[in-house]
Amino acid sequence: MSKISLTTASLWIACAAASSAAESLPSWNDSPAKQAIVNFVERVTTEGSPDYVPPAERIATFDNDGCLWSEQPAYFQLFFAIDRVRATAGDHPEWQTEEAFASVLKGDLKAVAASGEKGLMQLVAATHAGMTTEEFTAEVSAWMAEATHPQTGKRYTEMVFQPMLELLDYLRANGFKTFIVSGGGIEFIRPWAEATYGIPPEQVVGSSLKMKYEVRDGTPVILKLAEIDLIDDKAGKPVGIQGHIGRRPIFAAGNSDGDFQMLEWTTAGEGPRFGMIVHHTDADREWAYDRDSHVGQLDRALDAAPDRGWNVVDMKQDWGVIYPE
Amino acid sequence: MSKISLTTASLWIACAAASSAAESLPSWNDSPAKQAIVNFVERVTTEGSPDYVPPAERIATFDNDGCLWSEQPAYFQLFFAIDRVRATAGDHPEWQTEEAFASVLKGDLKAVAASGEKGLMQLVAATHAGMTTEEFTAEVSAWMAEATHPQTGKRYTEMVFQPMLELLDYLRANGFKTFIVSGGGIEFIRPWAEATYGIPPEQVVGSSLKMKYEVRDGTPVILKLAEIDLIDDKAGKPVGIQGHIGRRPIFAAGNSDGDFQMLEWTTAGEGPRFGMIVHHTDADREWAYDRDSHVGQLDRALDAAPDRGWNVVDMKQDWGVIYPE
Repeated sequence: MSKISLTTASLWIACAAASSAAESLPSWNDSPAKQAIVNFVERVTTEGSPDYVPPAERIATFDNDGCLWSEQPAYFQLFFAIDRVRATAGDHPEWQTEEAFASVLKGDLKAVAASGEKGLMQLVAATHAGMTTEEFTAEVSAWMAEATHPQTGKRYTEMVFQPMLELLDYLRANGFKTFIVSGGGIEFIRPWAEATYGIPPEQVVGSSLKMKYEVRDGTPVILKLAEIDLIDDKAGKPVGIQGHIGRRPIFAAGNSDGDFQMLEWTTAGEGPRFGMIVHHTDADREWAYDRDSHVGQLDRALDAAPDRGWNVVDMKQDWGVIYPE
Repeated sequence: MSKISLTTASLWIACAAASSAAESLPSWNDSPAKQAIVNFVERVTTEGSPDYVPPAERIATFDNDGCLWSEQPAYFQLFFAIDRVRATAGDHPEWQTEEAFASVLKGDLKAVAASGEKGLMQLVAATHAGMTTEEFTAEVSAWMAEATHPQTGKRYTEMVFQPMLELLDYLRANGFKTFIVSGGGIEFIRPWAEATYGIPPEQVVGSSLKMKYEVRDGTPVILKLAEIDLIDDKAGKPVGIQGHIGRRPIFAAGNSDGDFQMLEWTTAGEGPRFGMIVHHTDADREWAYDRDSHVGQLDRALDAAPDRGWNVVDMKQDWGVIYPE
């Protein structure tokens, strides 16, 4: 084959790849955001290119709440915790006056949500202490199959973002390994992440409780203790990434200031890097919020995005569809 | 195609698979141990069989010291720590009288090794506090490329077990995901595990120090702190497995009482499970030790093996080769 025909063949392959990329992200409107994603993926996957990244190093990390699924009017894990508190309140008369339990029982969501992910973790710790990991997994799975969102009436796993599902698939089709790196609880996300996102339990990083192994009447169990192990948020995210993955991602997506350090750590690495922020701008189809939100506050990271080259995705403009049909 | 010819085709495929299995483990002598491995893998990978396990659940965990590589006359990570202590002893006059540093500087390996994996972790914590993960990785890599074992003169990564490399490959070829679950340091193993074992950093679980993210003069770093996060040994192994993998393995291999709980947790699960113990019985080609060894003591797990159905691999009898040629 002559040099000219080889070049033609290369062009041919490049065009085929580009066209396949466009087809892989059908819910993304043609926009600079989509183009930036496709350009990045093509750069790091083109063998012989100076920006080529071997598959083993194609690590992509995604925040969960507000990045892969909705997080309003409160983190979905909070709704799960509320249901648990209500179900077991009879055994805990002290909860009537003790916060955040009292607010949960009064149905004052705002007061509960204001306690943030740390408050959520306390609630989780208190309502799940002494439970085995397998019991907890069974409860999460049962709840996910039954519970519905108070405003949309959808199942929570139906409130995932279709464009992000496509992005996960697109990255994996291009040799990336996709991880969740969430402030939410690792054991809360694992039971449904594989079916929903195609992300297996071993690729979920999240906030965690300390655990203890013991043998009960001859049966080994792992207990979730009422003690926080890691808050996988803000500066905890790079720590969670290093602990679980041991490699710096080349692609990270988030939506709030809780993702600032993950984006910073990811994009400060050498070679091509991609930082992405999902900006909630669509009050009609989802929610619109940023600097003043008590959930998923996006302020510092939004200011920093232009200088740091982080790609801000405008949900209203850039996404043709929000939830899967 | 008729029913008969379909059955013939199935038999054909089954025979081909069996023959390929034998070829995949050439350094294993024909023995009950090898046959047990092959039988197990065939059972869990045969679609339609009641013992079939979907690929996503084919999790295999391996201890490192004494299971994938040698561990005598002391854990290899201890030799690394010793070299670090010697290299920095000038800055630490107090180490001349402080244990385990004093024994390290006197070259009294036995006294150092007697402090066990916990002592090793203290030594690691003390000699690496305040160092970034990237600095530590660079030091481990440089040491691995240069250092040699005091008795064999080999590089440490040449003292891995050829039959175990074949077993890792064989499991992966059959859809298993292979993990290291080691009492040794997670950050010590990661830099060379991929090239040596084909196990990427995100599939290494080990003992760990707490870490801290910070931005130094505009450059983000992750610091290793002088505080133990997890001792991934004994009852810590199932906890490390749950934290990192979030799924119970169906296959686990170890060689010491430090692996007891990992074997117990693995084989107590429902469905087909495989527990394996590498028994060091070959004083000529490697080392022979078990119940009274200060490193890799194997006593309780050896007694428990028959009742629990754990497969004991006799290095002398079952392995045709120890180290790669």
